Amino acid sequence: MKNKKEIIAGIIIIGNEVLSGRTKDINTSTISTWLNSLGIEVKEVRIIPDDKKKIIDTVNELKTNFNYIFTTGGIGPTHDDITAESISDAFNLKYDFHKEAFSILENYYKPGEFTEGRQKMAKMPTTAKLIINPSSGAPGFYVENVFCLPGVPSILQSMLGGLNNILVGGDQIISKTLNLKTVESEIAKSLSDVQDQNKEVEIGSYPFFKAGKLGVSIVLRSTEQKKIDKCSEQILNFVKAKNIEIIREVQ
Amino acid sequence: MKNKKEIIAGIIIIGNEVLSGRTKDINTSTISTWLNSLGIEVKEVRIIPDDKKKIIDTVNELKTNFNYIFTTGGIGPTHDDITAESISDAFNLKYDFHKEAFSILENYYKPGEFTEGRQKMAKMPTTAKLIINPSSGAPGFYVENVFCLPGVPSILQSMLGGLNNILVGGDQIISKTLNLKTVESEIAKSLSDVQDQNKEVEIGSYPFFKAGKLGVSIVLRSTEQKKIDKCSEQILNFVKAKNIEIIREVQ
Repeated sequence: MKNKKEIIAGIIIIGNEVLSGRTKDINTSTISTWLNSLGIEVKEVRIIPDDKKKIIDTVNELKTNFNYIFTTGGIGPTHDDITAESISDAFNLKYDFHKEAFSILENYYKPGEFTEGRQKMAKMPTTAKLIINPSSGAPGFYVENVFCLPGVPSILQSMLGGLNNILVGGDQIISKTLNLKTVESEIAKSLSDVQDQNKEVEIGSYPFFKAGKLGVSIVLRSTEQKKIDKCSEQILNFVKAKNIEIIREVQ
Repeated sequence: MKNKKEIIAGIIIIGNEVLSGRTKDINTSTISTWLNSLGIEVKEVRIIPDDKKKIIDTVNELKTNFNYIFTTGGIGPTHDDITAESISDAFNLKYDFHKEAFSILENYYKPGEFTEGRQKMAKMPTTAKLIINPSSGAPGFYVENVFCLPGVPSILQSMLGGLNNILVGGDQIISKTLNLKTVESEIAKSLSDVQDQNKEVEIGSYPFFKAGKLGVSIVLRSTEQKKIDKCSEQILNFVKAKNIEIIREVQ
Protein backbone atom coordinates (compact mmCIF):
# COMPACT_ATOMS: atom_id res chain seq x y z
CA MET A 1 0.00 0.00 0.00
CA LYS A 2 1.30 3.40 -0.95
CA ASN A 3 1.14 6.33 1.44
CA LYS A 4 -2.38 7.65 1.43
CA LYS A 5 -1.11 11.18 1.39
CA GLU A 6 2.40 12.60 1.39
CA ILE A 7 2.61 16.17 2.59
CA ILE A 8 6.04 17.78 2.30
CA ALA A 9 7.62 20.98 3.54
CA GLY A 10 10.70 23.12 3.01
CA ILE A 11 12.42 25.39 5.54
CA ILE A 12 14.28 28.61 4.73
CA ILE A 13 16.58 29.81 7.51
CA ILE A 14 17.33 33.48 6.88
CA GLY A 15 20.36 34.80 8.67
CA ASN A 16 23.98 35.79 8.20
CA GLU A 17 24.60 34.75 11.82
CA VAL A 18 23.95 31.10 10.94
CA LEU A 19 26.02 31.22 7.73
CA SER A 20 28.96 32.78 9.57
CA GLY A 21 28.98 29.90 12.04
CA ARG A 22 28.34 32.22 14.99
CA THR A 23 24.90 30.75 15.70
CA LYS A 24 24.08 27.05 15.46
CA ASP A 25 20.68 26.51 13.85
CA ILE A 26 18.31 24.62 16.12
CA ASN A 27 15.08 25.86 14.51
CA THR A 28 15.26 23.20 11.78
CA SER A 29 15.14 20.46 14.37
CA THR A 30 12.28 22.16 16.27
CA ILE A 31 10.17 22.71 13.14
CA SER A 32 10.87 19.25 11.66
CA THR A 33 10.01 17.41 14.86
CA TRP A 34 6.77 19.36 15.19
CA LEU A 35 5.85 18.82 11.51
CA ASN A 36 6.54 15.08 11.83
CA SER A 37 3.93 14.94 14.58
CA LEU A 38 1.42 16.39 12.08
CA GLY A 39 2.37 13.92 9.33
CA ILE A 40 4.37 16.48 7.34
CA GLU A 41 7.89 15.63 6.16
CA VAL A 42 10.63 18.22 5.69
CA LYS A 43 12.39 17.50 2.40
CA GLU A 44 14.79 20.42 2.09
CA VAL A 45 16.30 23.20 4.18
CA ARG A 46 18.12 26.23 2.83
CA ILE A 47 20.16 28.62 4.92
CA ILE A 48 20.54 31.92 3.09
CA PRO A 49 21.87 35.43 3.81
CA ASP A 50 19.86 38.54 4.81
CA ASP A 51 19.67 39.49 1.14
CA LYS A 52 16.39 40.61 -0.39
CA LYS A 53 16.90 39.20 -3.88
CA LYS A 54 18.08 35.87 -2.51
CA ILE A 55 15.07 35.62 -0.17
CA ILE A 56 12.62 36.41 -2.99
CA ASP A 57 14.24 33.95 -5.41
CA THR A 58 14.42 31.16 -2.83
CA VAL A 59 10.80 31.61 -1.70
CA ASN A 60 9.56 31.70 -5.28
CA GLU A 61 11.52 28.58 -6.20
CA LEU A 62 10.52 26.51 -3.19
CA LYS A 63 6.88 27.51 -2.72
CA THR A 64 5.85 25.61 -5.82
CA ASN A 65 7.83 22.46 -4.90
CA PHE A 66 6.45 21.91 -1.41
CA ASN A 67 3.06 21.94 0.28
CA TYR A 68 4.37 24.25 2.99
CA ILE A 69 7.32 26.58 3.38
CA PHE A 70 8.52 27.93 6.72
CA THR A 71 10.92 30.84 6.98
CA THR A 72 12.73 31.77 10.18
CA GLY A 73 14.41 35.04 11.04
CA GLY A 74 14.39 38.61 9.81
CA ILE A 75 11.03 39.80 11.14
CA GLY A 76 12.30 42.01 13.99
CA PRO A 77 12.59 45.81 14.12
CA THR A 78 16.17 46.39 12.89
CA HIS A 79 17.58 47.36 9.48
CA ASP A 80 18.69 43.77 8.75
CA ASP A 81 15.13 42.44 9.23
CA ILE A 82 13.95 42.29 5.62
CA THR A 83 11.90 39.10 5.47
CA ALA A 84 8.44 40.76 5.59
CA GLU A 85 9.36 43.16 2.80
CA SER A 86 10.87 40.37 0.70
CA ILE A 87 7.80 38.14 1.09
CA SER A 88 5.58 41.07 0.00
CA ASP A 89 7.70 41.38 -3.13
CA ALA A 90 7.73 37.64 -3.78
CA PHE A 91 3.91 37.61 -3.81
CA ASN A 92 3.47 41.07 -5.38
CA LEU A 93 1.61 42.29 -2.31
CA LYS A 94 1.59 45.73 -0.70
CA TYR A 95 4.11 46.08 2.15
CA ASP A 96 2.70 48.40 4.81
CA PHE A 97 1.20 48.45 8.29
CA HIS A 98 -0.99 45.40 8.88
CA LYS A 99 -4.04 46.68 10.78
CA GLU A 100 -4.51 43.69 13.08
CA ALA A 101 -0.78 43.37 13.78
CA PHE A 102 -0.57 47.09 14.54
CA SER A 103 -3.43 46.84 16.98
CA ILE A 104 -1.94 43.75 18.71
CA LEU A 105 1.37 45.55 19.21
CA GLU A 106 -0.31 48.78 20.30
CA ASN A 107 -2.12 46.87 23.05
CA TYR A 108 1.00 44.89 23.98
CA TYR A 109 3.16 47.91 24.79
CA LYS A 110 2.57 50.47 27.54
CA PRO A 111 1.28 53.85 26.38
CA GLY A 112 4.13 55.84 24.85
CA GLU A 113 6.32 52.75 24.37
CA PHE A 114 4.99 51.76 20.94
CA THR A 115 7.86 53.56 19.25
CA GLU A 116 8.71 53.88 15.57
CA GLY A 117 11.19 51.01 15.92
CA ARG A 118 8.50 48.76 17.32
CA GLN A 119 5.92 49.86 14.75
CA LYS A 120 8.12 48.36 12.02
CA MET A 121 7.17 44.91 13.36
CA ALA A 122 3.57 45.59 12.19
CA LYS A 123 4.76 46.08 8.61
CA MET A 124 4.22 43.09 6.35
CA PRO A 125 2.04 42.13 3.36
CA THR A 126 -1.14 44.00 4.35
CA THR A 127 -3.32 41.02 3.42
CA ALA A 128 -1.25 38.41 5.27
CA LYS A 129 -2.82 36.23 7.96
CA LEU A 130 -1.21 36.45 11.38
CA ILE A 131 0.59 33.84 13.49
CA ILE A 132 0.01 34.73 17.14
CA ASN A 133 3.08 35.16 19.36
CA PRO A 134 2.33 34.20 22.96
CA SER A 135 5.89 35.08 24.12
CA SER A 136 6.67 38.58 23.00
CA GLY A 137 3.77 40.21 21.19
CA ALA A 138 5.06 40.69 17.65
CA PRO A 139 3.14 38.24 15.44
CA GLY A 140 4.46 36.15 12.58
CA PHE A 141 2.41 35.89 9.41
CA TYR A 142 1.61 33.70 6.43
CA VAL A 143 0.72 34.23 2.80
CA GLU A 144 -0.70 31.25 0.90
CA ASN A 145 1.63 28.33 1.86
CA VAL A 146 4.55 30.41 3.17
CA PHE A 147 4.74 30.78 6.97
CA CYS A 148 7.10 33.39 8.42
CA LEU A 149 8.42 32.87 11.93
CA PRO A 150 11.01 34.70 14.02
CA GLY A 151 14.58 33.45 14.46
CA VAL A 152 14.77 33.40 18.26
CA PRO A 153 14.27 29.69 19.07
CA SER A 154 12.20 30.05 22.25
CA ILE A 155 9.79 32.51 20.61
CA LEU A 156 9.53 30.45 17.43
CA GLN A 157 8.75 27.34 19.46
CA SER A 158 5.97 29.10 21.39
CA MET A 159 4.24 30.06 18.12
CA LEU A 160 4.05 26.65 16.45
CA GLY A 161 1.09 25.32 18.45
CA GLY A 162 -1.10 28.08 17.00
CA LEU A 163 -0.66 26.54 13.55
CA ASN A 164 -1.73 22.98 14.42
CA ASN A 165 -5.27 23.55 13.20
CA ILE A 166 -4.26 25.50 10.13
CA LEU A 167 -1.87 22.99 8.54
CA VAL A 168 -3.31 19.93 6.86
CA GLY A 169 -1.11 16.93 7.63
CA GLY A 170 -0.68 13.61 5.88
CA ASP A 171 -0.20 10.11 7.21
CA GLN A 172 1.80 10.24 10.39
CA ILE A 173 5.38 9.05 10.10
CA ILE A 174 6.25 6.50 12.78
CA SER A 175 9.86 5.77 13.67
CA LYS A 176 11.77 3.23 15.70
CA THR A 177 15.40 3.51 16.74
CA LEU A 178 17.71 0.62 17.56
CA ASN A 179 21.00 1.60 19.20
CA LEU A 180 23.57 -1.11 18.72
CA LYS A 181 27.05 -1.60 20.14
CA THR A 182 28.77 -2.20 16.82
CA VAL A 183 30.34 -0.40 13.88
CA GLU A 184 28.59 0.23 10.56
CA SER A 185 30.84 -2.01 8.47
CA GLU A 186 29.91 -4.98 10.69
CA ILE A 187 26.23 -4.72 9.76
CA ALA A 188 26.30 -2.98 6.36
CA LYS A 189 25.65 -6.08 4.24
CA SER A 190 22.85 -7.50 6.42
CA LEU A 191 21.19 -4.10 6.73
CA SER A 192 21.29 -3.63 2.98
CA ASP A 193 19.55 -7.01 2.55
CA VAL A 194 16.82 -5.96 5.01
CA GLN A 195 16.38 -2.67 3.12
CA ASP A 196 15.99 -4.60 -0.15
CA GLN A 197 13.21 -6.68 1.40
CA ASN A 198 11.48 -3.67 2.99
CA LYS A 199 11.40 -1.00 0.30
CA GLU A 200 8.66 0.98 2.03
CA VAL A 201 10.57 1.46 5.26
CA GLU A 202 13.28 4.11 5.21
CA ILE A 203 16.25 2.61 7.05
CA GLY A 204 18.93 5.04 8.19
CA SER A 205 22.23 4.06 9.77
CA TYR A 206 24.09 6.60 11.91
CA PRO A 207 27.36 5.91 13.69
CA PHE A 208 27.82 7.68 17.03
CA PHE A 209 30.60 8.31 19.52
CA LYS A 210 29.17 9.64 22.74
CA ALA A 211 30.02 9.41 26.41
CA GLY A 212 32.96 7.26 25.35
CA LYS A 213 30.62 4.77 23.69
CA LEU A 214 30.90 3.80 20.07
CA GLY A 215 27.81 2.50 18.32
CA VAL A 216 25.32 2.71 15.49
CA SER A 217 21.75 4.02 15.57
CA ILE A 218 19.45 2.29 13.13
CA VAL A 219 16.39 4.44 12.46
CA LEU A 220 13.32 2.92 10.80
CA ARG A 221 10.68 5.28 9.41
CA SER A 222 7.36 4.46 7.79
CA THR A 223 3.71 5.44 7.95
CA GLU A 224 2.73 1.89 8.97
CA GLN A 225 3.54 0.29 12.31
CA LYS A 226 3.38 -3.28 11.03
CA LYS A 227 5.99 -2.56 8.35
CA ILE A 228 8.31 -1.15 10.99
CA ASP A 229 7.71 -4.18 13.21
CA LYS A 230 8.53 -6.62 10.41
CA CYS A 231 11.67 -4.72 9.49
CA SER A 232 12.75 -4.41 13.12
CA GLU A 233 12.31 -8.15 13.65
CA GLN A 234 14.56 -8.95 10.67
CA ILE A 235 17.22 -6.59 11.99
CA LEU A 236 17.04 -8.05 15.49
CA ASN A 237 17.49 -11.52 13.97
CA PHE A 238 20.82 -10.70 12.37
CA VAL A 239 21.86 -8.64 15.41
CA LYS A 240 21.33 -11.73 17.58
CA ALA A 241 23.11 -14.01 15.10
CA LYS A 242 26.13 -11.68 15.09
CA ASN A 243 26.14 -11.45 18.90
CA ILE A 244 25.78 -7.66 18.82
CA GLU A 245 24.67 -5.97 22.05
CA ILE A 246 21.48 -3.87 21.88
CA ILE A 247 22.11 -0.69 23.87
CA ARG A 248 18.54 0.60 23.58
CA GLU A 249 15.34 0.20 21.59
CA VAL A 250 13.20 3.34 21.28
CA GLN A 251 9.72 3.20 19.76
CA MET B 1 38.02 50.29 -1.36
CA LYS B 2 36.30 47.09 -2.45
CA ASN B 3 37.36 43.69 -1.20
CA LYS B 4 40.49 42.62 -2.96
CA LYS B 5 39.16 39.15 -3.31
CA GLU B 6 35.89 37.57 -2.26
CA ILE B 7 35.98 33.81 -2.02
CA ILE B 8 32.65 32.15 -1.35
CA ALA B 9 31.52 28.66 -0.45
CA GLY B 10 28.37 26.56 -0.24
CA ILE B 11 27.68 23.64 2.08
CA ILE B 12 25.48 20.63 1.28
CA ILE B 13 24.41 18.65 4.33
CA ILE B 14 23.28 15.23 3.12
CA GLY B 15 21.14 13.32 5.56
CA ASN B 16 17.58 12.30 6.34
CA GLU B 17 18.51 12.34 10.04
CA VAL B 18 18.95 16.12 9.96
CA LEU B 19 15.78 16.72 7.92
CA SER B 20 13.72 14.58 10.31
CA GLY B 21 14.84 16.72 13.24
CA ARG B 22 16.47 13.75 14.98
CA THR B 23 19.97 15.19 14.61
CA LYS B 24 20.84 18.85 15.03
CA ASP B 25 23.34 19.98 12.42
CA ILE B 26 26.53 21.34 13.94
CA ASN B 27 28.77 20.73 10.93
CA THR B 28 27.67 23.98 9.28
CA SER B 29 28.96 25.98 12.21
CA THR B 30 32.24 24.02 12.32
CA ILE B 31 32.91 24.39 8.59
CA SER B 32 31.86 28.08 8.45
CA THR B 33 34.02 29.08 11.41
CA TRP B 34 37.02 27.29 9.91
CA LEU B 35 36.43 28.79 6.44
CA ASN B 36 36.12 32.29 7.95
CA SER B 37 39.61 31.86 9.37
CA LEU B 38 40.84 31.23 5.81
CA GLY B 39 39.00 34.27 4.41
CA ILE B 40 36.25 32.20 2.78
CA GLU B 41 32.61 33.13 3.34
CA VAL B 42 29.77 30.62 3.35
CA LYS B 43 26.87 32.06 1.35
CA GLU B 44 24.41 29.19 1.27
CA VAL B 45 23.70 25.90 2.99
CA ARG B 46 21.34 23.22 1.75
CA ILE B 47 20.16 20.26 3.77
CA ILE B 48 18.92 17.53 1.46
CA PRO B 49 17.80 13.87 1.73
CA ASP B 50 19.87 10.75 1.01
CA ASP B 51 18.55 10.77 -2.54
CA LYS B 52 20.87 10.26 -5.48
CA LYS B 53 19.10 12.49 -7.99
CA LYS B 54 18.73 15.28 -5.44
CA ILE B 55 22.44 15.09 -4.52
CA ILE B 56 23.52 15.17 -8.18
CA ASP B 57 21.21 18.09 -9.04
CA THR B 58 22.22 20.11 -5.98
CA VAL B 59 25.95 19.59 -6.54
CA ASN B 60 25.66 20.47 -10.21
CA GLU B 61 23.68 23.62 -9.44
CA LEU B 62 25.91 24.90 -6.64
CA LYS B 63 29.36 24.00 -7.93
CA THR B 64 29.18 26.69 -10.59
CA ASN B 65 27.90 29.38 -8.18
CA PHE B 66 30.58 29.12 -5.51
CA ASN B 67 34.37 28.83 -5.37
CA TYR B 68 34.10 25.83 -3.07
CA ILE B 69 31.43 23.32 -2.15
CA PHE B 70 31.58 21.10 0.92
CA THR B 71 29.33 18.09 1.35
CA THR B 72 28.90 16.27 4.66
CA GLY B 73 27.52 12.81 5.24
CA GLY B 74 26.84 9.70 3.22
CA ILE B 75 30.39 8.37 2.75
CA GLY B 76 30.23 5.46 5.20
CA PRO B 77 29.81 1.74 4.47
CA THR B 78 26.02 1.30 4.67
CA HIS B 79 23.32 1.17 1.98
CA ASP B 80 22.21 4.75 2.68
CA ASP B 81 25.73 6.09 2.03
CA ILE B 82 25.39 7.22 -1.57
CA THR B 83 27.37 10.46 -1.70
CA ALA B 84 30.50 9.02 -3.40
CA GLU B 85 28.43 7.35 -6.11
CA SER B 86 26.37 10.52 -6.64
CA ILE B 87 29.46 12.73 -6.95
CA SER B 88 30.89 10.31 -9.53
CA ASP B 89 27.70 10.67 -11.53
CA ALA B 90 27.61 14.47 -11.14
CA PHE B 91 31.11 14.71 -12.67
CA ASN B 92 30.69 11.78 -15.12
CA LEU B 93 33.54 9.93 -13.47
CA LYS B 94 34.03 6.21 -12.93
CA TYR B 95 32.82 5.00 -9.51
CA ASP B 96 35.03 2.14 -8.33
CA PHE B 97 37.79 1.28 -5.85
CA HIS B 98 40.19 4.19 -5.43
CA LYS B 99 43.67 2.64 -5.30
CA GLU B 100 45.16 4.95 -2.70
CA ALA B 101 42.03 4.90 -0.51
CA PHE B 102 41.95 1.09 -0.71
CA SER B 103 45.54 0.85 0.38
CA ILE B 104 45.04 3.32 3.28
CA LEU B 105 42.10 1.27 4.56
CA GLU B 106 43.90 -2.04 4.02
CA ASN B 107 46.74 -0.80 6.22
CA TYR B 108 44.39 0.71 8.79
CA TYR B 109 42.56 -2.54 9.60
CA LYS B 110 44.03 -5.68 11.13
CA PRO B 111 44.57 -8.58 8.73
CA GLY B 112 41.23 -10.26 8.00
CA GLU B 113 39.22 -7.25 9.23
CA PHE B 114 39.12 -5.35 5.94
CA THR B 115 35.73 -6.82 5.14
CA GLU B 116 33.48 -6.23 2.13
CA GLY B 117 31.49 -3.66 4.14
CA ARG B 118 34.65 -1.69 4.90
CA GLN B 119 35.93 -1.97 1.34
CA LYS B 120 32.92 0.05 0.18
CA MET B 121 34.50 3.07 1.86
CA ALA B 122 37.30 2.91 -0.74
CA LYS B 123 34.78 3.28 -3.55
CA MET B 124 34.52 6.79 -5.00
CA PRO B 125 35.40 8.59 -8.25
CA THR B 126 38.60 6.72 -9.13
CA THR B 127 40.42 9.93 -10.05
CA ALA B 128 39.38 11.88 -6.91
CA LYS B 129 42.00 13.38 -4.61
CA LEU B 130 41.87 12.20 -1.00
CA ILE B 131 41.23 14.08 2.23
CA ILE B 132 43.15 12.31 4.97
CA ASN B 133 41.18 11.16 8.02
CA PRO B 134 43.33 11.19 11.16
CA SER B 135 40.49 9.86 13.37
CA SER B 136 39.13 6.73 11.80
CA GLY B 137 40.98 5.75 8.64
CA ALA B 138 38.37 6.17 5.89
CA PRO B 139 39.40 9.19 3.81
CA GLY B 140 37.16 11.89 2.35
CA PHE B 141 37.81 13.06 -1.19
CA TYR B 142 37.48 15.96 -3.56
CA VAL B 143 36.82 16.44 -7.25
CA GLU B 144 37.53 19.88 -8.71
CA ASN B 145 35.94 22.32 -6.21
CA VAL B 146 33.67 19.82 -4.42
CA PHE B 147 34.99 18.48 -1.08
CA CYS B 148 33.25 15.47 0.46
CA LEU B 149 33.47 15.00 4.20
CA PRO B 150 31.83 12.56 6.61
CA GLY B 151 28.81 13.47 8.72
CA VAL B 152 30.14 12.52 12.17
CA PRO B 153 31.10 15.93 13.65
CA SER B 154 34.25 14.86 15.53
CA ILE B 155 35.67 13.03 12.50
CA LEU B 156 34.77 15.86 10.13
CA GLN B 157 36.47 18.38 12.40
CA SER B 158 39.68 16.33 12.56
CA MET B 159 39.91 16.33 8.75
CA LEU B 160 39.61 20.07 8.06
CA GLY B 161 43.18 21.00 8.98
CA GLY B 162 44.46 18.82 6.14
CA LEU B 163 42.77 21.16 3.66
CA ASN B 164 44.30 24.43 4.93
CA ASN B 165 47.03 24.39 2.30
CA ILE B 166 44.77 23.25 -0.52
CA LEU B 167 42.10 25.95 -0.32
CA VAL B 168 42.91 29.42 -1.59
CA GLY B 169 41.38 32.00 0.74
CA GLY B 170 40.44 35.63 0.22
CA ASP B 171 40.68 38.64 2.46
CA GLN B 172 40.12 37.58 6.01
CA ILE B 173 36.79 38.62 7.49
CA ILE B 174 37.18 40.36 10.84
CA SER B 175 34.29 40.64 13.26
CA LYS B 176 33.47 42.47 16.46
CA THR B 177 30.54 41.75 18.75
CA LEU B 178 28.91 44.21 21.14
CA ASN B 179 26.51 42.67 23.63
CA LEU B 180 24.09 45.29 24.92
CA LYS B 181 21.52 45.20 27.70
CA THR B 182 18.66 46.54 25.60
CA VAL B 183 15.94 45.46 23.19
CA GLU B 184 16.19 45.78 19.41
CA SER B 185 13.43 48.34 19.03
CA GLU B 186 15.32 50.70 21.37
CA ILE B 187 18.30 50.91 19.01
CA ALA B 188 16.78 50.08 15.61
CA LYS B 189 16.68 53.65 14.27
CA SER B 190 20.20 54.63 15.42
CA LEU B 191 21.66 51.35 14.18
CA SER B 192 20.05 51.84 10.80
CA ASP B 193 21.66 55.31 10.56
CA VAL B 194 25.08 53.82 11.37
CA GLN B 195 24.55 51.13 8.71
CA ASP B 196 23.72 53.84 6.14
CA GLN B 197 26.99 55.62 6.93
CA ASN B 198 29.05 52.40 6.89
CA LYS B 199 27.91 50.50 3.82
CA GLU B 200 30.98 48.26 3.73
CA VAL B 201 30.51 46.91 7.22
CA GLU B 202 27.87 44.21 7.58
CA ILE B 203 25.95 45.03 10.78
CA GLY B 204 23.82 42.26 12.23
CA SER B 205 21.48 42.62 15.19
CA TYR B 206 20.50 39.52 17.18
CA PRO B 207 18.26 39.56 20.23
CA PHE B 208 19.10 36.98 22.90
CA PHE B 209 17.52 35.60 26.04
CA LYS B 210 20.04 33.56 27.97
CA ALA B 211 20.73 32.80 31.61
CA GLY B 212 17.71 34.98 32.38
CA LYS B 213 19.32 37.94 30.61
CA LEU B 214 17.68 39.78 27.79
CA GLY B 215 19.85 41.67 25.35
CA VAL B 216 21.02 42.31 21.80
CA SER B 217 24.24 41.22 20.12
CA ILE B 218 25.46 43.62 17.48
CA VAL B 219 27.89 41.89 15.14
CA LEU B 220 30.12 43.94 12.83
CA ARG B 221 31.85 42.15 9.96
CA SER B 222 34.29 43.54 7.41
CA THR B 223 37.63 42.76 5.85
CA GLU B 224 39.13 45.97 7.29
CA GLN B 225 39.81 46.62 10.97
CA LYS B 226 39.63 50.40 10.66
CA LYS B 227 36.15 50.24 9.16
CA ILE B 228 35.00 48.09 12.05
CA ASP B 229 36.60 50.50 14.52
CA LYS B 230 34.86 53.52 13.00
CA CYS B 231 31.51 51.76 12.96
CA SER B 232 31.94 50.47 16.51
CA GLU B 233 32.76 53.99 17.75
CA GLN B 234 29.56 55.39 16.23
CA ILE B 235 27.52 52.64 17.86
CA LEU B 236 29.17 53.15 21.24
CA ASN B 237 28.34 56.87 20.95
CA PHE B 238 24.60 56.31 20.67
CA VAL B 239 24.75 53.51 23.24
CA LYS B 240 26.29 55.97 25.71
CA ALA B 241 23.78 58.70 24.83
CA LYS B 242 20.91 56.27 25.43
CA ASN B 243 22.39 55.09 28.73
CA ILE B 244 22.48 51.47 27.56
CA GLU B 245 24.69 49.07 29.53
CA ILE B 246 27.42 47.25 27.57
CA ILE B 247 27.46 43.65 28.77
CA ARG B 248 30.55 42.64 26.79
CA GLU B 249 32.71 43.68 23.83
CA VAL B 250 34.37 40.85 21.92
CA GLN B 251 36.92 41.53 19.23
